[in-house]
Amino acid sequence: MSKEPVEIVGIGNAIVDVLSRTEEEFLSLHQLTKGSMTLIEEEQAESLYQKMGPGTAVSGGSAANTIAAFAAMGGKAGFIGKVSNDQLGKVFRHDICATGVRFDTATLEDGPSTARCLILITPDAQRTMCTFLGACVWLAPSDLDEELIANAGITYLEGYLYDRPHAKQAFMRACEIAHAAGKKVALSLSDAFCVDRHRDEFLDLVQKHVDILFANEDEIKSLYQVKTFEEAVYHVRQHCHIAALTRSEKGSVIVSGEETVEVAAAPVAKVVDTTGAGDMYAAGFLFGLTRDMPLAECGRLASLAAAEVIAHVGARPQTDLAALLQLKKAV
Amino acid sequence: MSKEPVEIVGIGNAIVDVLSRTEEEFLSLHQLTKGSMTLIEEEQAESLYQKMGPGTAVSGGSAANTIAAFAAMGGKAGFIGKVSNDQLGKVFRHDICATGVRFDTATLEDGPSTARCLILITPDAQRTMCTFLGACVWLAPSDLDEELIANAGITYLEGYLYDRPHAKQAFMRACEIAHAAGKKVALSLSDAFCVDRHRDEFLDLVQKHVDILFANEDEIKSLYQVKTFEEAVYHVRQHCHIAALTRSEKGSVIVSGEETVEVAAAPVAKVVDTTGAGDMYAAGFLFGLTRDMPLAECGRLASLAAAEVIAHVGARPQTDLAALLQLKKAV
Repeated sequence: MSKEPVEIVGIGNAIVDVLSRTEEEFLSLHQLTKGSMTLIEEEQAESLYQKMGPGTAVSGGSAANTIAAFAAMGGKAGFIGKVSNDQLGKVFRHDICATGVRFDTATLEDGPSTARCLILITPDAQRTMCTFLGACVWLAPSDLDEELIANAGITYLEGYLYDRPHAKQAFMRACEIAHAAGKKVALSLSDAFCVDRHRDEFLDLVQKHVDILFANEDEIKSLYQVKTFEEAVYHVRQHCHIAALTRSEKGSVIVSGEETVEVAAAPVAKVVDTTGAGDMYAAGFLFGLTRDMPLAECGRLASLAAAEVIAHVGARPQTDLAALLQLKKAV
Repeated sequence: MSKEPVEIVGIGNAIVDVLSRTEEEFLSLHQLTKGSMTLIEEEQAESLYQKMGPGTAVSGGSAANTIAAFAAMGGKAGFIGKVSNDQLGKVFRHDICATGVRFDTATLEDGPSTARCLILITPDAQRTMCTFLGACVWLAPSDLDEELIANAGITYLEGYLYDRPHAKQAFMRACEIAHAAGKKVALSLSDAFCVDRHRDEFLDLVQKHVDILFANEDEIKSLYQVKTFEEAVYHVRQHCHIAALTRSEKGSVIVSGEETVEVAAAPVAKVVDTTGAGDMYAAGFLFGLTRDMPLAECGRLASLAAAEVIAHVGARPQTDLAALLQLKKAV
């Protein structure tokens, strides 16, 4: 039985975030690099959890955040990712389905528990993440819903999938399915350290398989191993149809062929937690793009969505995004 | 082995909150009264969870919120409450201990799961709660750490404990221990419907056993079955040494003997979620009181703490409360 096609299908790690406020000293004490994402084992996750402050648990995962927000804006979206048969898996599934996302990936029955990301928020609102991937590692090519991908306008992938062999195979297979069906592939580079771990493969991907690229300044500079943002822009222009490059409070730059669009960051009364800023940016951008809006308008929606999520703790929106964007006369 | 005494020991339901944004229609569809707390069974909790939107999970429980905030301000506090041997029980224990609260109540090994409160936040920032009490119901007089209570300056109780016979016995026993040791008993009336369920017993309690009473306008009017706030103030003045009565954006009124102190509400840029406002008010008030501050100053701290918690989703503070209060030159 065929189901209604979606505009975007995201493939990524299915994670529940546990966010907690901390001081800079806690990071140095545990040898954590601020702003980075570190992969940890379950035992380390338990030990770090015991030491960290009171937490707030919210569904996360980079591509999943983007997909949930895209759906909250009123878009049709699907998600593919692996959770385990446990409490956190139930939470992840509930939360993404509750936004109207189609999420049919089979639950992992015998295996590690659902992924958790311990997120430490320092007083400067930066987030430092320690992720136990758990069940995510078991996402395999056989989990891909080929019909869903072939019928989606855009297949959206997160770079973090490259950290594990099974998931990486699924990633590559999804690119093939999308392109064979004449559809587009979008990629978020995820993290400068993740780029560092997989630079050659990411370069190859960006040159040959990615139509729409999302990256922040650090990530795109790391990809091309250049010192300035301008050099990175020069390179990426040759490789992707569209690249949306975010620069925190400096806004973003969208590069497409000869076109270069600079977008200001949307104002935020108080930046509380930057977790999910890039994910929301991608959601807003893709929402505009799938509605054939001009790049400047895509960027404006992206900035508004990012501004919503950095004003509170957690990477998923806490206000009615569709209403928020309408209020601003954006859609 | 004796442990260091605490200033305040709280006794209450040990609950993890799951908060979600909703529309007014959802409440009427499920016959929920806005602003109230309804007790539900586990099956109803499962069914409501499936229907509600994406959630944010944060430790809660009325007295537990107060105690955690009191500790976050720099006070010495203990908590007595019952969790089960499950994931949510671990979350509750982690979060309250991470604020420095002494929490030694034995985990329930064979019994219902840890309590959950499904909290629906309407666009007007009001919260409507559905609570599955689970393990909380099994809090019994034998769970009381008599030494902890006898040595604490104040024993703080939540009215919600009255909803179950075991917990109510523990409640009464705690009053006896505290008073026998020459210490004070504080009570939060919790909820106008809870007052309605137990009015005669609460009246008796307030007249004979409670030294410090916290209530909002609806609760205190319900207790005395009067139409105006002024009538309620007249009655409570005869019964409690101190009564701190909150009136949302109208601030609060503190009544003690002949004294009446009016305290303005602290300004909030945007009220997001009123969950925990009363609990935080009590924390700030008790922090000032245990430091022998004048009632007006206790009220000011109370209002500042309440203002912090209504500016975000969840009933536990998300900023450094001690720093916040110091910043305002309050302590």
